Amino acid sequence: MRIDIITVLPELLKSPFEASILKRAIEKGLVEVHMHNLRDYSDNNYNQVDDYQFGGGAGMVLMIEPIDKCISGLKKEREYDEVIYMTPDGETLNQKMANGLSLQKNLIILCGHYKGIDQRVRDSLITKEISIGDYVLSGGELGAAVLCDTIIRLIPGVLNNETSALTDTFQDNLLAPPVYTRPSEYKGLKVPDILLSGNFPKIEKWREEKAMERTEKLRPDLLE
Amino acid sequence: MRIDIITVLPELLKSPFEASILKRAIEKGLVEVHMHNLRDYSDNNYNQVDDYQFGGGAGMVLMIEPIDKCISGLKKEREYDEVIYMTPDGETLNQKMANGLSLQKNLIILCGHYKGIDQRVRDSLITKEISIGDYVLSGGELGAAVLCDTIIRLIPGVLNNETSALTDTFQDNLLAPPVYTRPSEYKGLKVPDILLSGNFPKIEKWREEKAMERTEKLRPDLLE
Repeated sequence: MRIDIITVLPELLKSPFEASILKRAIEKGLVEVHMHNLRDYSDNNYNQVDDYQFGGGAGMVLMIEPIDKCISGLKKEREYDEVIYMTPDGETLNQKMANGLSLQKNLIILCGHYKGIDQRVRDSLITKEISIGDYVLSGGELGAAVLCDTIIRLIPGVLNNETSALTDTFQDNLLAPPVYTRPSEYKGLKVPDILLSGNFPKIEKWREEKAMERTEKLRPDLLE
Repeated sequence: MRIDIITVLPELLKSPFEASILKRAIEKGLVEVHMHNLRDYSDNNYNQVDDYQFGGGAGMVLMIEPIDKCISGLKKEREYDEVIYMTPDGETLNQKMANGLSLQKNLIILCGHYKGIDQRVRDSLITKEISIGDYVLSGGELGAAVLCDTIIRLIPGVLNNETSALTDTFQDNLLAPPVYTRPSEYKGLKVPDILLSGNFPKIEKWREEKAMERTEKLRPDLLE
């Protein structure tokens, strides 16, 4: 898989891709992530990529021209499955969407910043608008990092133990059961006896029950 | 405001706090963010902080002891309003929750990793569990960065233009209207005439209509 990220703040995105699972996935050659600084596509001497909005109002808006130049250049090199724009009014990301995107070959992710991007970009260049949740961020960069993390960890071979992703919360529309590790007692707090019993069929049943209990209590909407 | 982040991957969180709005907020002294490497609180020579889960199964679990040591140490220094754990089965973050948290003084944010944390931490040390959305990430670090960004940008004085946050998507339960900037025509794509008219009451009305139209079309649930 290849992901091209277009941003005015490539420096913000540095460390998430240089640590942990994303780093390993890139080193193993399972995914290529390319950052494009939108300012490199500006046509003026100040590397300007934003301007005041027509009609007045607070906040700057990213201009269509540098974005068009960057995306058009990439599209000449290869075919892209989606050109994604990270925006709080996009379709809300969920695990099913992440599963689908993890099967794609080439993705462009455009990060908004300031007040957003010129609407004509959204109308003519973007194929999919994604929100990571109902809240506002300073820019699309953290959203892009979140999206990449959810997608990349699903690519076969990225996680050390492939069963690990399959037993995650949401993969079966249930929350995960509680987990415990050593010591079996800490300041009077004990691990449930069943988990120390060695009776694996019973443990499995207990986990299923707890997963269901927790989902019914915390997220009944997932069961509908 | 002071935020203490507890993580096994402080290096992952480096760049988001060293760029853009979070950097400026820290430099202006409007927020202090302290990273705590959980491994510094391990009591063995290998800096071990995780172990296999009781009852078997894929994925490592963060142990209670180093987490308890770290949180207890912080609590001795000052009072905390919330001890937050980032987890996909927590309460889903939204703008209202971000507004509320932006008024707090001291917050601890614990990032899970691998398969999660020992349930006894959640039962005895955590006061609030937050999810940034219905999807699974490699760890809580990106969730913590997202949470900090949504909170910190709301602190008065952080954004250059304070009206900017007030006109954001979600603050009034409406999506934002479309925005446009120069040039007024690009490859045949034109900015709506109304925005070039200079008639500001009419522009304001147009924006309200568009915000409502967009919300009805894309997110009718926000209007309920």
